[in-house]
Amino acid sequence: MKYLCLNGPNLHRLGKREPAIYGSETLQDVAEMLENILRVYDSEIELKQSNYEGQLIDWLYEAEDGDIDGIIFNPGAYTHTSIALRDAIAGIDVPVIEVHISNIHKREAFRHHSFLAPVCVGQISGLGIFGYEAAIRSLLKTHKGDLY
Amino acid sequence: MKYLCLNGPNLHRLGKREPAIYGSETLQDVAEMLENILRVYDSEIELKQSNYEGQLIDWLYEAEDGDIDGIIFNPGAYTHTSIALRDAIAGIDVPVIEVHISNIHKREAFRHHSFLAPVCVGQISGLGIFGYEAAIRSLLKTHKGDLY
Amino acid sequence: MKYLCLNGPNLHRLGKREPAIYGSETLQDVAEMLENILRVYDSEIELKQSNYEGQLIDWLYEAEDGDIDGIIFNPGAYTHTSIALRDAIAGIDVPVIEVHISNIHKREAFRHHSFLAPVCVGQISGLGIFGYEAAIRSLLKTHKGDLY
Amino acid sequence: MKYLCLNGPNLHRLGKREPAIYGSETLQDVAEMLENILRVYDSEIELKQSNYEGQLIDWLYEAEDGDIDGIIFNPGAYTHTSIALRDAIAGIDVPVIEVHISNIHKREAFRHHSFLAPVCVGQISGLGIFGYEAAIRSLLKTHKGDLY
Amino acid sequence: MKYLCLNGPNLHRLGKREPAIYGSETLQDVAEMLENILRVYDSEIELKQSNYEGQLIDWLYEAEDGDIDGIIFNPGAYTHTSIALRDAIAGIDVPVIEVHISNIHKREAFRHHSFLAPVCVGQISGLGIFGYEAAIRSLLKTHKGDLY
Amino acid sequence: MKYLCLNGPNLHRLGKREPAIYGSETLQDVAEMLENILRVYDSEIELKQSNYEGQLIDWLYEAEDGDIDGIIFNPGAYTHTSIALRDAIAGIDVPVIEVHISNIHKREAFRHHSFLAPVCVGQISGLGIFGYEAAIRSLLKTHKGDLY
Amino acid sequence: MKYLCLNGPNLHRLGKREPAIYGSETLQDVAEMLENILRVYDSEIELKQSNYEGQLIDWLYEAEDGDIDGIIFNPGAYTHTSIALRDAIAGIDVPVIEVHISNIHKREAFRHHSFLAPVCVGQISGLGIFGYEAAIRSLLKTHKGDLY
Amino acid sequence: MKYLCLNGPNLHRLGKREPAIYGSETLQDVAEMLENILRVYDSEIELKQSNYEGQLIDWLYEAEDGDIDGIIFNPGAYTHTSIALRDAIAGIDVPVIEVHISNIHKREAFRHHSFLAPVCVGQISGLGIFGYEAAIRSLLKTHKGDLY
Amino acid sequence: MKYLCLNGPNLHRLGKREPAIYGSETLQDVAEMLENILRVYDSEIELKQSNYEGQLIDWLYEAEDGDIDGIIFNPGAYTHTSIALRDAIAGIDVPVIEVHISNIHKREAFRHHSFLAPVCVGQISGLGIFGYEAAIRSLLKTHKGDLY
Amino acid sequence: MKYLCLNGPNLHRLGKREPAIYGSETLQDVAEMLENILRVYDSEIELKQSNYEGQLIDWLYEAEDGDIDGIIFNPGAYTHTSIALRDAIAGIDVPVIEVHISNIHKREAFRHHSFLAPVCVGQISGLGIFGYEAAIRSLLKTHKGDLY
Amino acid sequence: MKYLCLNGPNLHRLGKREPAIYGSETLQDVAEMLENILRVYDSEIELKQSNYEGQLIDWLYEAEDGDIDGIIFNPGAYTHTSIALRDAIAGIDVPVIEVHISNIHKREAFRHHSFLAPVCVGQISGLGIFGYEAAIRSLLKTHKGDLY
Amino acid sequence: MKYLCLNGPNLHRLGKREPAIYGSETLQDVAEMLENILRVYDSEIELKQSNYEGQLIDWLYEAEDGDIDGIIFNPGAYTHTSIALRDAIAGIDVPVIEVHISNIHKREAFRHHSFLAPVCVGQISGLGIFGYEAAIRSLLKTHKGDLY
Repeated sequence: MKYLCLNGPNLHRLGKREPAIYGSETLQDVAEMLENILRVYDSEIELKQSNYEGQLIDWLYEAEDGDIDGIIFNPGAYTHTSIALRDAIAGIDVPVIEVHISNIHKREAFRHHSFLAPVCVGQISGLGIFGYEAAIRSLLKTHKGDLY
Repeated sequence: MKYLCLNGPNLHRLGKREPAIYGSETLQDVAEMLENILRVYDSEIELKQSNYEGQLIDWLYEAEDGDIDGIIFNPGAYTHTSIALRDAIAGIDVPVIEVHISNIHKREAFRHHSFLAPVCVGQISGLGIFGYEAAIRSLLKTHKGDLY
Repeated sequence: MKYLCLNGPNLHRLGKREPAIYGSETLQDVAEMLENILRVYDSEIELKQSNYEGQLIDWLYEAEDGDIDGIIFNPGAYTHTSIALRDAIAGIDVPVIEVHISNIHKREAFRHHSFLAPVCVGQISGLGIFGYEAAIRSLLKTHKGDLY
Repeated sequence: MKYLCLNGPNLHRLGKREPAIYGSETLQDVAEMLENILRVYDSEIELKQSNYEGQLIDWLYEAEDGDIDGIIFNPGAYTHTSIALRDAIAGIDVPVIEVHISNIHKREAFRHHSFLAPVCVGQISGLGIFGYEAAIRSLLKTHKGDLY
Repeated sequence: MKYLCLNGPNLHRLGKREPAIYGSETLQDVAEMLENILRVYDSEIELKQSNYEGQLIDWLYEAEDGDIDGIIFNPGAYTHTSIALRDAIAGIDVPVIEVHISNIHKREAFRHHSFLAPVCVGQISGLGIFGYEAAIRSLLKTHKGDLY
Repeated sequence: MKYLCLNGPNLHRLGKREPAIYGSETLQDVAEMLENILRVYDSEIELKQSNYEGQLIDWLYEAEDGDIDGIIFNPGAYTHTSIALRDAIAGIDVPVIEVHISNIHKREAFRHHSFLAPVCVGQISGLGIFGYEAAIRSLLKTHKGDLY
Repeated sequence: MKYLCLNGPNLHRLGKREPAIYGSETLQDVAEMLENILRVYDSEIELKQSNYEGQLIDWLYEAEDGDIDGIIFNPGAYTHTSIALRDAIAGIDVPVIEVHISNIHKREAFRHHSFLAPVCVGQISGLGIFGYEAAIRSLLKTHKGDLY
Repeated sequence: MKYLCLNGPNLHRLGKREPAIYGSETLQDVAEMLENILRVYDSEIELKQSNYEGQLIDWLYEAEDGDIDGIIFNPGAYTHTSIALRDAIAGIDVPVIEVHISNIHKREAFRHHSFLAPVCVGQISGLGIFGYEAAIRSLLKTHKGDLY
Repeated sequence: MKYLCLNGPNLHRLGKREPAIYGSETLQDVAEMLENILRVYDSEIELKQSNYEGQLIDWLYEAEDGDIDGIIFNPGAYTHTSIALRDAIAGIDVPVIEVHISNIHKREAFRHHSFLAPVCVGQISGLGIFGYEAAIRSLLKTHKGDLY
Repeated sequence: MKYLCLNGPNLHRLGKREPAIYGSETLQDVAEMLENILRVYDSEIELKQSNYEGQLIDWLYEAEDGDIDGIIFNPGAYTHTSIALRDAIAGIDVPVIEVHISNIHKREAFRHHSFLAPVCVGQISGLGIFGYEAAIRSLLKTHKGDLY
Repeated sequence: MKYLCLNGPNLHRLGKREPAIYGSETLQDVAEMLENILRVYDSEIELKQSNYEGQLIDWLYEAEDGDIDGIIFNPGAYTHTSIALRDAIAGIDVPVIEVHISNIHKREAFRHHSFLAPVCVGQISGLGIFGYEAAIRSLLKTHKGDLY
Repeated sequence: MKYLCLNGPNLHRLGKREPAIYGSETLQDVAEMLENILRVYDSEIELKQSNYEGQLIDWLYEAEDGDIDGIIFNPGAYTHTSIALRDAIAGIDVPVIEVHISNIHKREAFRHHSFLAPVCVGQISGLGIFGYEAAIRSLLKTHKGDLY
């Protein structure tokens, strides 16, 4: 299986930006963690990040064209403002799980609403970078049955 | 006369994405249809698409600089979220007609409001790709008088 | 094919009332324009206007009973207030296209919402009386294929 | 480690009520799945369900008194209406993870808001009963470090 | 046929509490009236009342398990606040008719909205305890055809 | 006793318009059903329908002038938009019961609110045309005591 | 000078309907009072009333066609719901003063907003039928200068 | 009879401030006009103005203590913000008529709502300084019967 | 005199739960304080607490049946969500004073609104457990006159 | 200890204005009651009232400058409109308790919100003038410990 | 040139009230700083402060009468509540710049809206007392051209 | 010191787009003005502009990496829609001042709210391009003390 881990604006600074909220691990750490998990299942994952809404949309369609089997998407602030990303997720035939490192429901009111969650499989919020792990295991379970 | 047919996010997948809503014709089909219509009037049109809000803004100003006589704009999801595009349309001295293939008033409530319509000449919604034809004929009528 | 061009409140004064917003052409001009277009296709259209919501509802059902093939409907101010008209449009088996001469999205906020658009084929706004032409050509295209 | 899996109103019918939304597995299946996972870590879990808001509050405090190390809580409909449960979660010194089997963001608007999420560690929604597994693994990770 | 007449909070005081609004007849009077009606059709009904939301949910599922053919439900104030009861009604395969003795639309604004009505067969409000009679006759009509 | 059964916009198409929502019985069927019920009690009823808000207002006052003892009113879409009808009902000294064939609380949000219900005796919604029967029996009960 | 006193829905029952709110004088009394005032100034007035929104719109345009110099308009409940009447008032070149017998700001919230007032000269509310007198004197003052 | 003409903030500049909205007559002109009218009826009026909300409240109570028979009150911007003035008007036993020179319903939305109107006899808006005359004549009519 | 001190959800943990907000005194301390005060007046009080909305409703009616002379009610979070408790308070003929230990107006917006306060004698908020003392003294004053 | 009892707009008429709501006791009665209570504790209080928001702000700062130990503040209608008073209370280092004689939660919706309560120690509402007594005893308790 | 530096409620305590928000400099310091700047340009400024809305209105008009060339206005909390001050600023022919020492957009939501900004030249917020300097330099630039 | 002057969408057309609102000076003029000011202080500034939200985010982080001492940011329309830019500003350790050439509070309501201002030092609006100068002088003052 091939997976994509897509990350939206400001996440390239993970581990550096506001560590009190987002922790000290970097996106590189996330990528390694996910690769370690997937190696066992002869699967792989690519991790991408962009601050451009348009780039993220492009990548979603490329994922479909590239026969990606599932996407873990941390859309950052575009979660709350981007209908264009919602349309892209709805327009591709690849399951997407929305992940947030921090608990968005604990923060400002404008972060409680997600334009994307209704077209995703589900949403994970507040579990730190373990949220990425939970998302990949959820996709694996669907694709490969019980794993542990 | 020279026209521009500008298309926003996700429209590069027209004909493929959610055909139940948007039909099976592609942007290429739209371009050919518009060229066929315009050939009769010794006019031409260029069709562009981008998933980047910033790119769309750039093209609007380039249209003005390039002496484009009118713009058909299907802004996709940016219709509902982009004040920056609104400012660009208001800032150029070229008439713009907003076109939506599907009937946006039949869909989710957040698709009913357009930030762009108030600074466009008008809005066409729900007539399928005929909407593009209606828009170009409206521009032609203004520029060339009664045509048929 | 037989068509109906239905017009709601205040439109009998078209060409006289607030010409800065609605232009100087009258409903009679609209009727002639539409007849000229349809003559080519061996089709005809009847234009009606009423200030009575009840009369407009009656006519919608009479259109269905009279085997009308399509309706161009400029509902005027009832666009924004009449659920009864919405129910009538939903209740008949005739396609209806909503037309507004002025750009309703440019005017007061209470004119932005249409109770009727969600049960119509689509909505055209701001193209002047060319909107009527675009609507009839859209219906013709559906009924007769490519026309020009 | 000792854990509690708490379930709110209507969840005793899991597997029977609206299987199109909630799947065909029962709470008993969930309990067994969680026990199987925890056996490996010499840990245990008790699963409780009640339709009474008051009972759920009582159990939250009993969990604290009984030295429970973490709680997986699927509050069902009380998610959206119970400030009393929020106060109980905030009042105990035990981490709570909110789990929803279905994707609450895909359903009616009144299911999008959670009174409880802001005082929980995080929220998982839409991953089916795998959500329970993800929650227990998240708690284990915190308590025992990397597990797999 | 077997029916259930379920009554929510404060209705045990019917006939005593605020008689100007709710009249002087008691729940016992309601039970007798319904039994008299049903005796003719070899049918029976049980009347229950609870101030506990959880108890009412339990009873709804017990009704389904006990092969109850229809439920008359006066949910009292839980009408306006309980999503949990809504889920229970949606989760059982028994028709439910919502009844209010007083005219809830004449009272405070927060009593105008019902979380339950959308998942019930219908709602009767303001007809006094005759509302219960109308509800049982509606269920009988569906089950036994024309009765009078 | 003399009664009036008043019906608002679109109801002349009952049995034909959207039968999935409103059933296949016509207003004529409703009239006969009500006459059959009232014959037993030496009472009579007249059934009227109009798509004109003004006509409905006129008839309400004529009912008062004609010594009508009670009115069953299915106001259709005017339920949600007409303050003028509300004033007429409040202005006459005849009891009015509001009836809806479909369950208005299950439909679009703008159909949940009734301007008329607060000045009617009560409201019946979702019981099909049995709602008319329930309304007439409620009026009879008030006027003639226990009937069955 | 020629004036029109236009009255909307339910006002034909003035003096009979809810006298506690509207007083015991009839529209006929109003007409006589206005005629008495105008006789002194060699002017006249016609009083009309209709429950039909469409009829009121027609009369507004007829007033303009009939060279009426000013209109006193008590639009009754259409004040709060009719954008069509607003458009008619804006569309004619005759000054209109909005009059309400009762103090609409003291009543239900939905009576506080007027769609018509912004396109009228002004609004008088709560002065009883003296409001009609004040309106005609205001028009006279504009047309004839100081009168008393 | 003794009357008070009370004027709120900014009205001391009447005739100078924004004459396009408020006209060129001064408060002194208003005072003289009212005195001329009242002289005929052996009545008098005092005109006061203050920019202080507290001062206006004081004067309302002094009016009651001084046996003032009626008050014409142009509260200026305090109309829309002062609950304290509302309480003062409600607390005195003197009839108050609210007057606005400009048509407040034609201006910004925040000027459409009046905290004071519900506790006044009525409101006059948009008739220029004739509004003051209409108000005093309305009070005179109540106090002295028909005057003209 | 006999009084009841009723306490809603989470208050059994008073003194333990979030002491920074609620202080360190327990409900038992409150009970003793109230008993000490009442002993002087030959009066008594019973203190009850439940996390069940239904139980609290039951106790309110039992208080009326048991000739309780007044109730001090700290409804906890049910203050903001329970219309059922409101109906119970309105339905009994015993004065109720609402007490909150913390200042609810200083906390989250959803804690500012009370469904219960409008049917209570009054509300005390933010005075710590002295609020209970103030409430009992207020009831005593009403029942026994000036006490100190 | 020295205290200040500050009273806002309209309260100088206490005992006279709307006695059905506010009772028949005057501010002078309140002052004497408070002095009687404080005499026992060798403390004193000054009572002030103003209809001017600016005056009330001035007095709050003078209280701080004059070493006042606590303030009982009945802000009247400024409760709901004055952010300036909120800033003054927040700006001084003296505890303030907000008191309302009537139950503001039972009255119009605009009286339910207090701009001041969040910066006061607490709020007492609906206990009549006993509310002043409760407030002073609360301040005394804080300053002097248990008193009775 | 002559300028006025006007300051609203609570600003007389600048430097003392909540220094964490507003800093430790006093209004006197502000006055001196402004005088020092203006001395270079042979200009002068007067600094005034009042807690009375009415006084501030008076001063605005006096400024116009006194040929003041520009006003720096820190309206404090009246920014958010005073339409009367807005009318005064709009009514005088003197440019006004609104200044806030703290960043009002960082504070409570009710401080984000300014009634005054739309009628001022502009608004400066969050730059500490440098905001006053920026405002005077902006006025100077307009009046005297480039200064540095 | 090194500074960055960042400019968002449409600002590359400054001096050309809607000069009535934005004036005739270009971004190049702004850059020269700022450089002239900074030369005196041995400081420098770079001016950048982009229509891409993603590019602006990138530049903010590059500024931090490049040891920029302060940022003047005119975010154009992204002010009102971009949470991603807010997160970037909050995520870097460089002070940012938000500048708008026009008075955004005087324009459409959707331009009154800024997502960015709460995480900036402050906001300047309506002072024309002098706003840029005020911003740089504010940063200089912080960094270098009193300058003039």
